[in-house]
Amino acid sequence: MKVSDSYRWNNKHGLDKKVKKMEYDVIVIGGSASGITTAITGKNAYPDKTFLMIRKEKHAIVPCGIPYIFGSLLETEKDMISDDMFKKNKIEVKVDEVTHIDVIKKTCKTSDGTVFTYDKLVLATGSEACIPSWLEGADKENVFIIPKDKEYLDRALHQLSSAKKIITIGGGFIGVETSDELRKIGKDVTIVEKLPHILGTAFDDEICEEVEKTLKQRDVRFITGVGISKIIGGKKATGVELENGEVLSADAILLTVGYQPNTKLAVEAGLSLNEKGYIKVDEYMHTDNHDIMAVGDCAEKRDFITRKISSTMLASTACAEARIAGMNLFKLSAMKTFSGTIAIFSTALGNTGFGVAGVTEKTAVFEQFDIVTGSFTGVDKHPGTLPEVHKQTVKLIAAREGGLVLGGEVIGGNSTGELTNLIGFIIQNKMTVNNILTAQIGTHPLVTAPPTAYPLIKAAEVVAKKL
Amino acid sequence: MKVSDSYRWNNKHGLDKKVKKMEYDVIVIGGSASGITTAITGKNAYPDKTFLMIRKEKHAIVPCGIPYIFGSLLETEKDMISDDMFKKNKIEVKVDEVTHIDVIKKTCKTSDGTVFTYDKLVLATGSEACIPSWLEGADKENVFIIPKDKEYLDRALHQLSSAKKIITIGGGFIGVETSDELRKIGKDVTIVEKLPHILGTAFDDEICEEVEKTLKQRDVRFITGVGISKIIGGKKATGVELENGEVLSADAILLTVGYQPNTKLAVEAGLSLNEKGYIKVDEYMHTDNHDIMAVGDCAEKRDFITRKISSTMLASTACAEARIAGMNLFKLSAMKTFSGTIAIFSTALGNTGFGVAGVTEKTAVFEQFDIVTGSFTGVDKHPGTLPEVHKQTVKLIAAREGGLVLGGEVIGGNSTGELTNLIGFIIQNKMTVNNILTAQIGTHPLVTAPPTAYPLIKAAEVVAKKL
Repeated sequence: MKVSDSYRWNNKHGLDKKVKKMEYDVIVIGGSASGITTAITGKNAYPDKTFLMIRKEKHAIVPCGIPYIFGSLLETEKDMISDDMFKKNKIEVKVDEVTHIDVIKKTCKTSDGTVFTYDKLVLATGSEACIPSWLEGADKENVFIIPKDKEYLDRALHQLSSAKKIITIGGGFIGVETSDELRKIGKDVTIVEKLPHILGTAFDDEICEEVEKTLKQRDVRFITGVGISKIIGGKKATGVELENGEVLSADAILLTVGYQPNTKLAVEAGLSLNEKGYIKVDEYMHTDNHDIMAVGDCAEKRDFITRKISSTMLASTACAEARIAGMNLFKLSAMKTFSGTIAIFSTALGNTGFGVAGVTEKTAVFEQFDIVTGSFTGVDKHPGTLPEVHKQTVKLIAAREGGLVLGGEVIGGNSTGELTNLIGFIIQNKMTVNNILTAQIGTHPLVTAPPTAYPLIKAAEVVAKKL
Repeated sequence: MKVSDSYRWNNKHGLDKKVKKMEYDVIVIGGSASGITTAITGKNAYPDKTFLMIRKEKHAIVPCGIPYIFGSLLETEKDMISDDMFKKNKIEVKVDEVTHIDVIKKTCKTSDGTVFTYDKLVLATGSEACIPSWLEGADKENVFIIPKDKEYLDRALHQLSSAKKIITIGGGFIGVETSDELRKIGKDVTIVEKLPHILGTAFDDEICEEVEKTLKQRDVRFITGVGISKIIGGKKATGVELENGEVLSADAILLTVGYQPNTKLAVEAGLSLNEKGYIKVDEYMHTDNHDIMAVGDCAEKRDFITRKISSTMLASTACAEARIAGMNLFKLSAMKTFSGTIAIFSTALGNTGFGVAGVTEKTAVFEQFDIVTGSFTGVDKHPGTLPEVHKQTVKLIAAREGGLVLGGEVIGGNSTGELTNLIGFIIQNKMTVNNILTAQIGTHPLVTAPPTAYPLIKAAEVVAKKL
């Protein structure tokens, strides 16, 4: 983007009419979930400080909403993050790419040549979709990744509209959600996943089996336990060859095999990365330069339970980190630290929700935690004769020592997300099954399970009996 | 019920084929939410003990489901509690009424003359619908209360089927839910509430106004701020006269002005009642007789925050008390006590949910707590362009001292119940707004608010700024 474009855009949006003030107290690089949340939380905590957000995207897109562009929304315009909040919160926005950070002079330079000085800098540079270097044919036409890039997504949407048969490589959340959405508008979709189960890194096997059952009911096909050896075709992809030699034809290929942190600027600025390639940060989100923080997909994550470096990228975790960073920008609070990612996921396929917080049983066993587990299946409304009642299952993973809750998984209806968040709260606040056994919960026929058989409490009873 | 009937019923259900064993370790009197939960939790905790439940109802009904019989279910059979769980949990059931408790001999006598001895006795005798003694005309035909009594409800359902115009006296949860259900099947319904607002004792005024707006949209009429002076008509009610002299005509009247604890047996057994007429209990649910516990609507409640005696009756609170009682039957655990009712309510009108946990702002102010409050309104799915998105509002009430969370209110879609439960957990575990500000939450387009604007966290930010 040229200088003039940037100025015109900024003027049109009235955000920084006169970009004369080149000195800012805080500069946030990146305009997605974590950048926005750092800027807003920071400005809220330090209203007297000046904030500038520099982002390269003309229009920021809601990251978690991207899969839903392909079926429910059908246009990227419906998945945009409004810029109104920046004006409202007195945060200036510069649309341009940062090309250089000078950590000695404490400046950022953008591609239009402008130099901004900062007191505190926050890197919220995010991640980008992986394209495995070993995968032959990944550069063919009609092979799409799912980036947070409106223009790319517009093109992908347009080109996919004429495709009938689609193969999705990778059965993680983005692959599954996008495939389900494409099936919703009549595409013939097959997911190919190398692991034994769809969503196999997120959930325990018995939950994955329910995911798979739901996909089957929704006519989304999948092949598990076999990888892709290459993408075949000429200029245009015509299908994939599996590791077992089988060939599947397709009109388009989706490549959803994960994301990698954007750390180019951080590396150039001399900041340390960890062994997985994320920018090293402490519990206040400081990098090894005390005036630079990093948050979101580009920043190091440590698992809350295993204490190991994690590569889980979630907008929700990103925002939690961003709130910590924003609150700690100028004054550290030992009460407001990020103590490791609990990795709280949820998703939905039609009216069935799936959620997980903390460690799964398989991770806990692999890491050699001495655990007990308990599951209970009931209903999410009561009596079960009411319309739209959904089966609700809660599985809990707890340490044998003291019954400390280490993880939980949920299958249910529309309340799955918040029930999973409740389990996340229990884990983050180091509660035990006793806290669940003695919990008061509110219940109502149309919105929750019955008080006599609230699955979270019943699952805790199963765990307690084994302790 | 005669002896023979009782035996026949019990034999048919295979629950206590030979009622020869007249000695039980535990006898629970009452077969609704708290009785069931005490028996099941107790048997689970003490599998070697023998349990007998004595209930007077042939068929137990799901208490919170009763309003939904009048519109969604249309028959009481769809709102029954199955007896399967008793067999499964090896809990014997006797269908009869207890006529006498001998606390010296530790026996219960039922109306068929059988005498049962107990080691521990649990009173779960519940509550019954109030009929105000001052209300003229309450005994007329076509004036109905909402008791937990299948036969009565069957008659009411039948008689209401021919009524076109219905007046509901009392705008609490049961009155509102039943009225909304009756409107759903085409009845012309008007709620008359003496307080300034519908659900005025449960919620703060601005939330009540949203309840009222929702009722209006659903074409349920209401009159607030005026009481009833009498029910008019001959043998059959033809309407009501309001305190302001106005007369409203109706084909049927619903009287939903609250419930009172069933304490007859307790009083006869010499147990103490508190000043509001509930059976006095300690934090382990013991009455003043160490071998007798009381749980549910008949048992004393103390507000978790105000520490005052409360008259809130909820199946969910009843079940929380019942779990405590069941776990403490033979061995006391200082970690498993009932530390006061948080009064977590939720309800739904169509696809709009309303929830509350802890104290409202008006109660807090009345009780002279030094508080700050904060509200935030967002959406329950994201982006807001997705289908079935519902506005979501969270209001938090916190102590100025330390930001301890004292209460919360929620308006939203189908996840309102679990989000309210999350706030309940925060209150019960004495968390502060800091715990919310630093909380990790999971988010997903189809099941939660966005991570950047999760109303619970944003409301906490509003509170934090005022602290």
